[in-house]
Amino acid sequence: MIKTINDLLLDSREKNDIEICGWVKTKRASRNICFIMINDGSTLNDLQCVINVDELGTNISDSINTGASVKINGNLINSKGNEQNLELKVKSIDIIGGSINYPIQPKNHSLEFLRDISHLRFRTRTFYSVFKIRSTISYAIHKFFRDNNFIYLNTPILTSNDAEGAGEMFTVTSIDLLNNKNIDFKDDFFGQKVNLTVSGQLEAETGIFGLNRVYTFGPTFRAENSNTTRHLAEFWMVEPEMAFFDLEADIVLAENFVKYIITSVLDQCKPELEFLNALCVKKDNYSLIDKLTNTVNEKFEQISYTEAINILSNCKKNSEFRYPVTGWGIDLQTEHERYLTESYFKKPVIITDYPKDIKAFYMRLNDDNKTVAAMDILFPGIGEVIGGSQREERLDYLMNAIKEKSINPDYLKWYLETRQFGTIIHSGFGMGLERIVQFITGMDNIRDTIPFPRFPNHCEF
Amino acid sequence: MIKTINDLLLDSREKNDIEICGWVKTKRASRNICFIMINDGSTLNDLQCVINVDELGTNISDSINTGASVKINGNLINSKGNEQNLELKVKSIDIIGGSINYPIQPKNHSLEFLRDISHLRFRTRTFYSVFKIRSTISYAIHKFFRDNNFIYLNTPILTSNDAEGAGEMFTVTSIDLLNNKNIDFKDDFFGQKVNLTVSGQLEAETGIFGLNRVYTFGPTFRAENSNTTRHLAEFWMVEPEMAFFDLEADIVLAENFVKYIITSVLDQCKPELEFLNALCVKKDNYSLIDKLTNTVNEKFEQISYTEAINILSNCKKNSEFRYPVTGWGIDLQTEHERYLTESYFKKPVIITDYPKDIKAFYMRLNDDNKTVAAMDILFPGIGEVIGGSQREERLDYLMNAIKEKSINPDYLKWYLETRQFGTIIHSGFGMGLERIVQFITGMDNIRDTIPFPRFPNHCEF
Repeated sequence: MIKTINDLLLDSREKNDIEICGWVKTKRASRNICFIMINDGSTLNDLQCVINVDELGTNISDSINTGASVKINGNLINSKGNEQNLELKVKSIDIIGGSINYPIQPKNHSLEFLRDISHLRFRTRTFYSVFKIRSTISYAIHKFFRDNNFIYLNTPILTSNDAEGAGEMFTVTSIDLLNNKNIDFKDDFFGQKVNLTVSGQLEAETGIFGLNRVYTFGPTFRAENSNTTRHLAEFWMVEPEMAFFDLEADIVLAENFVKYIITSVLDQCKPELEFLNALCVKKDNYSLIDKLTNTVNEKFEQISYTEAINILSNCKKNSEFRYPVTGWGIDLQTEHERYLTESYFKKPVIITDYPKDIKAFYMRLNDDNKTVAAMDILFPGIGEVIGGSQREERLDYLMNAIKEKSINPDYLKWYLETRQFGTIIHSGFGMGLERIVQFITGMDNIRDTIPFPRFPNHCEF
Repeated sequence: MIKTINDLLLDSREKNDIEICGWVKTKRASRNICFIMINDGSTLNDLQCVINVDELGTNISDSINTGASVKINGNLINSKGNEQNLELKVKSIDIIGGSINYPIQPKNHSLEFLRDISHLRFRTRTFYSVFKIRSTISYAIHKFFRDNNFIYLNTPILTSNDAEGAGEMFTVTSIDLLNNKNIDFKDDFFGQKVNLTVSGQLEAETGIFGLNRVYTFGPTFRAENSNTTRHLAEFWMVEPEMAFFDLEADIVLAENFVKYIITSVLDQCKPELEFLNALCVKKDNYSLIDKLTNTVNEKFEQISYTEAINILSNCKKNSEFRYPVTGWGIDLQTEHERYLTESYFKKPVIITDYPKDIKAFYMRLNDDNKTVAAMDILFPGIGEVIGGSQREERLDYLMNAIKEKSINPDYLKWYLETRQFGTIIHSGFGMGLERIVQFITGMDNIRDTIPFPRFPNHCEF
C-alpha cells in the first residue's frame, strides 16, 4: 500500500530519500528558509517541510499556494521545533496541481460558509475531525452488534408501506412528471405508489423470526419542512430488533450500546477530539472530552413518563416554557427534554412508559391499559437520541391499536403475519446517527455532521 | 445478554434446569417419545428436544405445530443420536404463539414461492445462510477498509446531480402527484428536480482531498426495466476512492479486497457454506466451497481489452454468440465475459484499458488517445463484480471528455473544482454487494441475495 504521511509519522524515525504527496496548508518564509505545512488527509497533523530557498531557487516557493498539491523528495529528520518531532528537509519539490482563487484560506471560516462548499470542507481540520469520528462511530456500531451476535439486515429504502405514521414521506417515481398530466401509479415502475422509507423497523421485525437479532443501518427520509439545527431530510438510522427481549433488556442493551460508541471514539480519535475540544472550550466554555467521559462513567437516570410529568409540572421553570406542562398525556417538547437532562438530572435520562396515544401502534400496551412499554433516551444538548419499545406481540391488541390509530390494516398484512405464526416477545430501538455524531463532536448544527446535508431547498452536489 | 441456543451449543456441556425459547421446525413422535427440533435463529443448527409424552401429557405434543413458538424448561444432556452432541430433556413446555396455516412446512419450497413471502423466508435454512453470509460480507468490507485507513463516507442518496450517465434515475418529490396537474419542481421540497443516486463516486472523489482514502457503502438505484437474474432496482454498492493511487495500485487493492471478503466468509461461516454447498452439489453438481477456495488461492488473470477482443474474435465460439465480436470498439456482453472467465481462463479475469467511447467521462485517457485507464473484474457465473478506473485528474482532458459525451458541465461545477484546487492522481472502483453475495452463496437469482428485492412491478412489504 502507498505510504502516507501518517505512516511516516507513526514510524517516527529519521529516514533519507523519502517521497510524499500532499496539499499545502500554510507557508511562511523567513529569509532564505521557507516552511510549508503539508497534509495528505491521512492524519490531522501536518508535516513540516523545510525548503532552503537558495538551494532550490526562489521561484519554486513563490508558486506554492494554499491548496496546491505537491510531490516532495527529501530527508525526514528530527525537528528542532517544539510543534513536531519530525520534519522533512526538502531536496526537490514538484507542483502537481495549482490552486488559484482557492476559497479555503488559512483563517477561520464560518461553518455556514463551509457548508455552502461541502465538496471542499473535507479539507479543513474541523471536518476532517468530524468525518473521521463519524466513520469511527459507524464502525463501532457494526462491531458492537457483530460482537453481540446480530445479523446486519438491509431493509428496503423503497417501500409501498405507507402505514407507520412516522412522518411525511417522499414519493419515488420513474414517470416523466413534466410530460404527464394524468399520473397513474399503475403505469409506474413498480405498478403502485412507492415512498422512501422513514424506518426499517417493521421489516426488521420480520427478520428476527429467522435470525434472532438483527439491525439495520442505512439512510432514512422525512419530507418535513423543518428548518432546524436538529433535522435533516436525509439521515442515517440504526435500528436493532431482538427476539425474546423485554423492555428492560432493551434498555440495558441501548445504554451499553451508546456507551460503547462513545468509548470507541474516546479510545480511537484522541487527536480529533482534542482539536474539537479546544473549539468547544473557546466557543462555549465547556470541555467536550469531560462531557463524553462523564457520559460513559455514569449510570443513566431512568424515570417513567409519569414521573417526568410530575417533575416538569412542579418545577419553577414550567411557567417559562414555551409550552408549559399542563398535565398527564401531553407529548414532551425539546425544551422539556433539555430541562430534564441539562438542569434537573444533568446527565442522560431514560424515560419509559409513555401514554399510548402519543406513541406508535406497534408498542406493547402495559397492564394499566393507558401506557405502552416505550423508552426514549435523552441526551443533554441534543434531546432524543434513542427511541425504542417492547413490541406488541399479541395479535388482538395490535389489531386494536391499528384501529385506534385509523391505520389501514391492508398495508400491514405481511407484518401482522409475524403475530400469527409463532409470535414472541421482542423489542428494539432506533438511533439517529447524526444526533450521536452531534453529541460526540460538539457540532451545534446537525447539517455539519453529514457530508452533504439535505434540507428544504438544499440538494446541491 | 439473554442466552441463545447458539450460546448453549457452543458451551457444549450438560446443564440442568435451563430455559430456551424458539420455534418448532419439525416434530416426530415414536410411541411415548416426541422429538421436536427447536431453532431460535441464533444458529443454523436446531436443538433436539425430547418429550416423554407419558410424563407431560399427550395434549401438549399434539398442539405443537411447525412454526409455533415455545418456551421449554429442561435438562441439557449428551445425546445418544448421531446428529447432535447435546439434546434437551424437556421438563415443561409452553406454547407462546400458535402457527395455524403456516406456509413454510418441512419440505422443499421453491425459491420463487419463498420470494413471494420474503417476510417469512428468513425462517428457512437457505435464507438464514444467505443473510448470515451477507452480513459477514458487509462486516468484512468495513473491516478491510478500516484496517487500510479508509474513512467511511456517506454520500447522498438524494441528488440533483443528473450527469453521470450511469443509467435511468428515479425522481423523488414531495408534491402530491394525484392532485397537481402542473408540476413545477421550483415548488418542490428541494426547489429543484431531485433523483435517487446511481453512484456516490463523484461525491466520494471530493472527500479524498481532505481524507485521503474514503469508501461509500450504501443503497443505489436504477430505474431500468430489466427483468433479469442479475439486476435489481435497489441494490447496495461499495465505492472506495484513493488519493495518489494509479490504475495498478487500484487493481492490487481490488483483488486483495475481494479475496479478503471471500476468505472472511470461508473462515466465519463454515456451517452456512456447507449447507449451501450441499445445495449446489445436488442441483448443479459443483462444489461451492472449492470454487471459493480456488478463487482465493489463484492470481486473477489480467488482460487488456484489446487482448480480450483478440481472444473472443478468434475463438470457435464466436459464431455462436448472440452478439458475435466484430472488432475493436464494441462493448463486451455478458456472454463474452462468461466465455473468458468460465471457458477460456476458468478463473476471475481483470480487463483493463477499454475504449474511451464505451466508458464514463471521468476515466483517465491513456497516451494512445483512444483507451482509458479502466479495469473491470469479471467472475465466473456472475460477470462484472468490480468496475473501476484511474480518474482523469487533468482539467482540460476532463472538460474535453465531458464535451465529447454531451454532458452539461453546469451540473458538475463542484466536481470540476477538485481539479482546479490541488488536483492529484487518484483511483477508485465500485462493487455491487449483491453480485458478490450471489457468487459466494451460489444463489442463481440476485433477488434471493437481498432481504426485500425491488424490481419492475415488485415493491411489496
